[in-house]
Amino acid sequence: MIGMGESRKQVGVLGLGRMGAALAGALLEAGHDVVVWNRSPLKAGPLLDRGARLAATPEEAASAEVVISCLSTYDAQRPVLAAASPKVLVNLTSGTPAQAREVASWASAEGIEYVDGVIMAVPQGIGTPQSRILYGGSRAAFDAQREVLSVLGEPVFLGEDAGLPALHDLALLGIMWSTMAGYLHALALVGTEGVTPSTFTPMALSWLSAVSGFLPGIGEQVASGDYATDVSALDINAAGLGLLVETSRERGIGTSVPSAVKELFDRAVAAGHGSHAIASVIEEIR
Amino acid sequence: MIGMGESRKQVGVLGLGRMGAALAGALLEAGHDVVVWNRSPLKAGPLLDRGARLAATPEEAASAEVVISCLSTYDAQRPVLAAASPKVLVNLTSGTPAQAREVASWASAEGIEYVDGVIMAVPQGIGTPQSRILYGGSRAAFDAQREVLSVLGEPVFLGEDAGLPALHDLALLGIMWSTMAGYLHALALVGTEGVTPSTFTPMALSWLSAVSGFLPGIGEQVASGDYATDVSALDINAAGLGLLVETSRERGIGTSVPSAVKELFDRAVAAGHGSHAIASVIEEIR
Repeated sequence: MIGMGESRKQVGVLGLGRMGAALAGALLEAGHDVVVWNRSPLKAGPLLDRGARLAATPEEAASAEVVISCLSTYDAQRPVLAAASPKVLVNLTSGTPAQAREVASWASAEGIEYVDGVIMAVPQGIGTPQSRILYGGSRAAFDAQREVLSVLGEPVFLGEDAGLPALHDLALLGIMWSTMAGYLHALALVGTEGVTPSTFTPMALSWLSAVSGFLPGIGEQVASGDYATDVSALDINAAGLGLLVETSRERGIGTSVPSAVKELFDRAVAAGHGSHAIASVIEEIR
Repeated sequence: MIGMGESRKQVGVLGLGRMGAALAGALLEAGHDVVVWNRSPLKAGPLLDRGARLAATPEEAASAEVVISCLSTYDAQRPVLAAASPKVLVNLTSGTPAQAREVASWASAEGIEYVDGVIMAVPQGIGTPQSRILYGGSRAAFDAQREVLSVLGEPVFLGEDAGLPALHDLALLGIMWSTMAGYLHALALVGTEGVTPSTFTPMALSWLSAVSGFLPGIGEQVASGDYATDVSALDINAAGLGLLVETSRERGIGTSVPSAVKELFDRAVAAGHGSHAIASVIEEIR
């Protein structure tokens, strides 16, 4: 609920997909005055029961002090925003940095204060301490809305460039997709010997926690360009990837992802980084 | 040092690369009687200063109660083991499950008690609580040597199949390589906007910790084959991978690994898993 020294705000929410509905729910939970709009108004039902008001048009929802937009795509969002024309827009629709910058330019031309954001959480995580939302764009608008945005998840301001949140989002999701692909490959591989996910996963989690501990050192090496190592040379890791691909192939499981990682590491070895740290692989990416 | 109720053991160590030297060092540290052999005896110097004895031949080192072998490859190990012919062999040389099973068969024919193991740690981690070593092979030999092996890292026994440690090793390392490739791609991507590793990495670590939290649920879905989701459908993730690849390409950075993950996810979508959870991707791997 709204605590002492905090103020009840009128918040418009455009889009009631899983994520939009979770955002509106967290705002209601915190005691804000929430007005929602969705292309299909049927989706608003459960939120209306919890005290939200239904707007008949995007424009009606956009009369609120601050408007949060969370639509399925930028293409779906374009006509909605054009109709809504809010005063302060927090755009949480997923897209590319270029798409975010395009909306920021449009907002600027329309005199709309603009903050772009990306949500590093699933809908079920909204409003919990595990939810983190990355923002970029107008620092003044962000500061003015920080309190209400805090209701949704820990707000992190990346800078005035409205494209930064989407760039970070893609970069972070890329880590997730790579990690999940590696985990699913591992499950498939140990599964060929009848090892179950419930046996393997605790080991994977403990190992992934150790791997996390290696990343700051890798980051420092990338920053400095000093790839010296006395821990684990790239050529040994590339050879290990060769064994992984070979063993996976022998067992008849797909190898597309480990093969791509192997080829990347092999290219870095061929470029002379064999005795360097794994961090040197970035030279073959950037 | 050797505590009350523990016994000082004669341990032979074959191979004094970074890892072999770390193993011998931890055994000395714990007060064991360590006899080392290396193709080039010069490498033994620092260990001799710490109380190790130098064996002139593998056979001499193999007269110890238990012999730990940690050579660069199975090819390098074969003649050494043939010459050594130990009573109890703990093989920590890295290789494939097939190579481990081959040595296990040879050991069985020779009447050697055999335990295979893989080290889930870097040499600097040996003997610390972060070190974990996975074993397979003779349960009796493992139980008899558990105390001395505990000096090197937390021992985990996977089963009587000597190939299991190598299989788990490859599976776990595969997760590491995928995760590191994802992290390096992310650094390259945010780097195109001048975001430094020191700014990005704390976000990556916090996110990776959240991602770890998703893995047990994915494992359960893989185990049950029930891929229903109300959190995050595969088609949305495949589309996100498309944005990652597109944005990376626009910024002129390499896309080989995210493209491979995208193609894997796309194949699962094409196979009808678009509305299913990411776990369903395993159907395209196994």
